[in-house]
Amino acid sequence: MKQRLRYHDSGLEEVRARIRSGEHDGPTGGLARGYVQTNLVILPEDYAFDFLKFCVRNPKPCPILEVTDVGSPVPLSMAPEADLRTDVPKYRVYENGKFTDEPTDVRSYWREDLVSFLLGCSFTFERALLDAGLYLAHLDQERNVPMYVTGRECAPSGPFAGPMVVSMRPYRADEIPLAVAISGRYPMMHGAPVHVGDPETLGVRDLGKPEFGDPIEIGEDQIPVFWGCGVTPQAVAMKVAPSLMITHSPGHMFITDRVDGEFEV
Amino acid sequence: MKQRLRYHDSGLEEVRARIRSGEHDGPTGGLARGYVQTNLVILPEDYAFDFLKFCVRNPKPCPILEVTDVGSPVPLSMAPEADLRTDVPKYRVYENGKFTDEPTDVRSYWREDLVSFLLGCSFTFERALLDAGLYLAHLDQERNVPMYVTGRECAPSGPFAGPMVVSMRPYRADEIPLAVAISGRYPMMHGAPVHVGDPETLGVRDLGKPEFGDPIEIGEDQIPVFWGCGVTPQAVAMKVAPSLMITHSPGHMFITDRVDGEFEV
Repeated sequence: MKQRLRYHDSGLEEVRARIRSGEHDGPTGGLARGYVQTNLVILPEDYAFDFLKFCVRNPKPCPILEVTDVGSPVPLSMAPEADLRTDVPKYRVYENGKFTDEPTDVRSYWREDLVSFLLGCSFTFERALLDAGLYLAHLDQERNVPMYVTGRECAPSGPFAGPMVVSMRPYRADEIPLAVAISGRYPMMHGAPVHVGDPETLGVRDLGKPEFGDPIEIGEDQIPVFWGCGVTPQAVAMKVAPSLMITHSPGHMFITDRVDGEFEV
Repeated sequence: MKQRLRYHDSGLEEVRARIRSGEHDGPTGGLARGYVQTNLVILPEDYAFDFLKFCVRNPKPCPILEVTDVGSPVPLSMAPEADLRTDVPKYRVYENGKFTDEPTDVRSYWREDLVSFLLGCSFTFERALLDAGLYLAHLDQERNVPMYVTGRECAPSGPFAGPMVVSMRPYRADEIPLAVAISGRYPMMHGAPVHVGDPETLGVRDLGKPEFGDPIEIGEDQIPVFWGCGVTPQAVAMKVAPSLMITHSPGHMFITDRVDGEFEV
């Protein structure tokens, strides 16, 4: 990690220390630039195989970057010195399917049967889109990216089933090829879009009413482009109502030791 | 499938019927050109989560294309009309870690607790290398690709642990960039090489003595290039000695309904 920091001097160690201590409990967008950020889902072991199978069956919304050993909060591959119980700025705790707490630390909830899953996040390809000279309309409008529940069912696995959730970023017709190509280089971070244009055939009825995030303005010359979204596995797991499920709070991601370029194909 | 066959008229249906009936029990290389072929590992449910986690942790040698439901021999995503008990030309059966049978059909071994795993196979990127004007030295020499046990340990998962196995294809220095780029477009089929040159630092002592496949001649101007190999998960699973494990016989792959281009990034 030290060696990498010479080339990616973005204060990863300081940022992680501030998150761990609870000093930083806000969103992680823009922090530790260059380092991969991930979605987090923590479930009891009883659900782990079916949930992992669900992710493997639905790689666009659920790209699996790491699965921890049962009971271990250490993501050995993505950040071997991190602790998933303390190193996310804000968590969401669900008990029997109900949202019950939003703490900055989940040590008091930890159980020896918990398995943690790290899933790819759109921040990596969003950074690449900006680096390629493209814009992100939701950033320009200072909103969260709009997310929609589609009419497209995920491939089910055991009790895990439900529709794919997508995020939407509008681009002009002449910008779409570049947006597709750039995001497609990061298959572990949702990769290329799942749908370009026509919201209706995707089962999205009203772009002005996203189920998650904020509505944004779309220019007359812009076409909505839809990507698989990491909210999908959380939404699906919530419906199964396990005794305990812990996730990151939206926008408050886990920051890894790995750099974006390692995941570029 | 019908619609695709118009563009990929390679006799997939006929080939599968001949394999299913036992009429074809030979290798599958070159059959049903354009269709993805896969490695097959079948294990009891008790091992399924740890094995799947092993694959997720070691994506270069073990890219997971599909996991079936417990007890089901149908790969719903890769070939919904196929039956994994009959549609591989030749299987290997291991009981308590010992190789006991090499049948053309495993219906008599089937149990309701079996889970099947389909893993990416190098045939897809080999076809792409040939299409890019490169050669495959082992094909030119009419041998099987040489495979070596490396000194590089896989990330373990539960009882599954052991060294990565690699396949080797030699190229000239000026050919290596293209060979890396082309194979890298297929991350689900082992993707880019894991090592270029110097066998010793990979823990390969004698290129003339591969642990699997055949030795091949390497030109003085050629450099050995190593790719993650699908023999890895089989070798690792064999050591765990489950009550029953079924795999394809080397070179006798499962042919899916999906085409190579679907997996190009």
